[in-house]
Amino acid sequence: MRKVAIVGIGQTPVREHWENNLRDLAVTALRDAMEDAGVETVDGVCVGNMLSGALSEQEHLGSLIVDYAGLDGVEGMKIEAACGSGAAAIRMAVKAVASGLMDAVGVVGVEKLTEFSGKFSIASLATAADADYEITMGLSFVGINALMMRRYLHEFKYDKNDFSIFPVNAHHNAVQNPNAMFRYTITPAQYAKSKMIADPINLLDSSPIADGAAAVIVVAEDHIQRYQGKGVSILACEVGTDTVALDNREDLLWLKGVERSVKKAYHVSGLSPRDIDFFEAHDAFSIITAMSLEASGFAEKGKAIPFAEKKGISIQGGLPLNTAGGLKGRGHPVGATGVYQVVEAVQQLRGVMPEAIQVKKNNVAMTQNIGGSGATVITTILKKIE
Amino acid sequence: MRKVAIVGIGQTPVREHWENNLRDLAVTALRDAMEDAGVETVDGVCVGNMLSGALSEQEHLGSLIVDYAGLDGVEGMKIEAACGSGAAAIRMAVKAVASGLMDAVGVVGVEKLTEFSGKFSIASLATAADADYEITMGLSFVGINALMMRRYLHEFKYDKNDFSIFPVNAHHNAVQNPNAMFRYTITPAQYAKSKMIADPINLLDSSPIADGAAAVIVVAEDHIQRYQGKGVSILACEVGTDTVALDNREDLLWLKGVERSVKKAYHVSGLSPRDIDFFEAHDAFSIITAMSLEASGFAEKGKAIPFAEKKGISIQGGLPLNTAGGLKGRGHPVGATGVYQVVEAVQQLRGVMPEAIQVKKNNVAMTQNIGGSGATVITTILKKIE
Repeated sequence: MRKVAIVGIGQTPVREHWENNLRDLAVTALRDAMEDAGVETVDGVCVGNMLSGALSEQEHLGSLIVDYAGLDGVEGMKIEAACGSGAAAIRMAVKAVASGLMDAVGVVGVEKLTEFSGKFSIASLATAADADYEITMGLSFVGINALMMRRYLHEFKYDKNDFSIFPVNAHHNAVQNPNAMFRYTITPAQYAKSKMIADPINLLDSSPIADGAAAVIVVAEDHIQRYQGKGVSILACEVGTDTVALDNREDLLWLKGVERSVKKAYHVSGLSPRDIDFFEAHDAFSIITAMSLEASGFAEKGKAIPFAEKKGISIQGGLPLNTAGGLKGRGHPVGATGVYQVVEAVQQLRGVMPEAIQVKKNNVAMTQNIGGSGATVITTILKKIE
Repeated sequence: MRKVAIVGIGQTPVREHWENNLRDLAVTALRDAMEDAGVETVDGVCVGNMLSGALSEQEHLGSLIVDYAGLDGVEGMKIEAACGSGAAAIRMAVKAVASGLMDAVGVVGVEKLTEFSGKFSIASLATAADADYEITMGLSFVGINALMMRRYLHEFKYDKNDFSIFPVNAHHNAVQNPNAMFRYTITPAQYAKSKMIADPINLLDSSPIADGAAAVIVVAEDHIQRYQGKGVSILACEVGTDTVALDNREDLLWLKGVERSVKKAYHVSGLSPRDIDFFEAHDAFSIITAMSLEASGFAEKGKAIPFAEKKGISIQGGLPLNTAGGLKGRGHPVGATGVYQVVEAVQQLRGVMPEAIQVKKNNVAMTQNIGGSGATVITTILKKIE
């Protein structure tokens, strides 16, 4: 099995892109990543996307994007794992390169969510949950997360406002990220007054839907010298799963998919939570940030908030978290999110982030992309190549 | 890179399955394949599916199917490449096993199309084509194929009824396949009187939408001795692509995606068209069968019909074609079709087909799964292990 590395990154700003359609966004990010890597073609393209069929009436994105990117005849495939589609596509690229079947693979995560009626987007996003046993019962996707947060507050006796630490941090970092959607700070006082969406989840607990595309070029590490020192090693890109429906889980407050995914990632990389310099968590909702920190081995169960307060999650803290704004601040273009996380981690490891959000101890990064309410989890560990 | 083999197969009948939902069908086929292989678990599951989100309001099929199959925590991902999704999922499994990342991978292709209004299914199937440049112009998917057939008739001076050889053969074989949807013969006379769908494509040129699931277990060949002589080698599983929109092609009558895919497959297997004992072609429409035979190197351009007449495409012929009924006779549950083709080829190579459709010279099989009107093509070459 060959070792793999990322040698090129590209991204569009995360926005409401009224002027660009799905293929424009994807091709822009992919061509930028290819230019960054200095490659003129790739052996294959893996596309991470969830909702192009339902919203843009366009399936078959693999061949479509390959064609519009000028990669005539190259293999292209779409991978879907709900909000985890982006990192799932990276996982597929890792398999293709590790196997020796391909030497260089482009991965592009792309999603276009905002030009449709909100009601339609929300119904489409609910297809990440169990259609037969959750959605037809009247649960929305935010409702599912609200059940977890309500139980967490009850079980561990927190005040809801204690959760503000996560979105406040995310917005603080997003200000510095030119590709972020929400480039303004928020305060705990604003959080406390924020509009309720699905009690106890308020607007400032919730990452926004958005349009965007992000891309990486994955190559075999044997070939790394070609890429002018741009390489970052993929030490691990591992998947853990859990039941899609919440009612099938033994413990509502433990993300077993996260635990499984990080255990594999720590195992194959030979690392532990101590070795991680910063963490790009899947903060779709504040409750998921907290539960991810716990199941990833950073904090004990029920202790993510005191951990964040004590350890420090800012850029200068003990575990910088969501350094470019996370889903909350950068925005959550669903099938692209997992690729944005990895692109941002590569920016950190290369030391090219805007100075105010550049992590100083930047050798090892962990990113975590989650599909559904924890049913598919892909944890990626990346390391600077000296 | 490790060699890979198929050691287990499973399938549901292709029908209108009013009594079974998407996950039931998938789990039935996958568990049957696992039982056939004699394995109690797998390292990962690749799901081929096109339209679960649009029609069953269920995305995130990877984790869902893994969970309902009792494979708690196992990696599951959905791959989508329009009507080529099934074989695309096999391709992904080949990468996972060839890389050494996984030793055994389950592949399940599943589709549920018939319990929705026909209009809705047809609109969804059109998402395989170019949404912006074909579908919004008023073309339907059958309309796109009709343009190719009209041009073919004009260019090569055939009578439309000459095409009956393909569906007559497919229905003839389907009679013997207990899993086929249409178990009755048709005659050239019936073909000539068949209802027009999109001139010149008539009803008997068109494969039917259907529900069904098919599965295979892919393992590393090093481990083959465990599987009691059930193994069939995957000599090649190769992808070729072409533009999604017809108007971007240089030649309307040449499936460049097919040519690219088979050239790679012949190259990696070291074989040529002469070595193929039988061929499972993607006969979504009769015109695609003809053009596939040509671009695959069996017949010269414009000569598929005389080739079929002369060489013989029946079970006793020189190139048995669509031996279990093909898409036309077995039915076309879109994202499952590519896996059905491979399952049927394995049945042939094992020599366990019903006697009347068992091919006698059964060492090497070729299957070909096509997404859209030729934009994604996956050609698989399978060989008996002595």
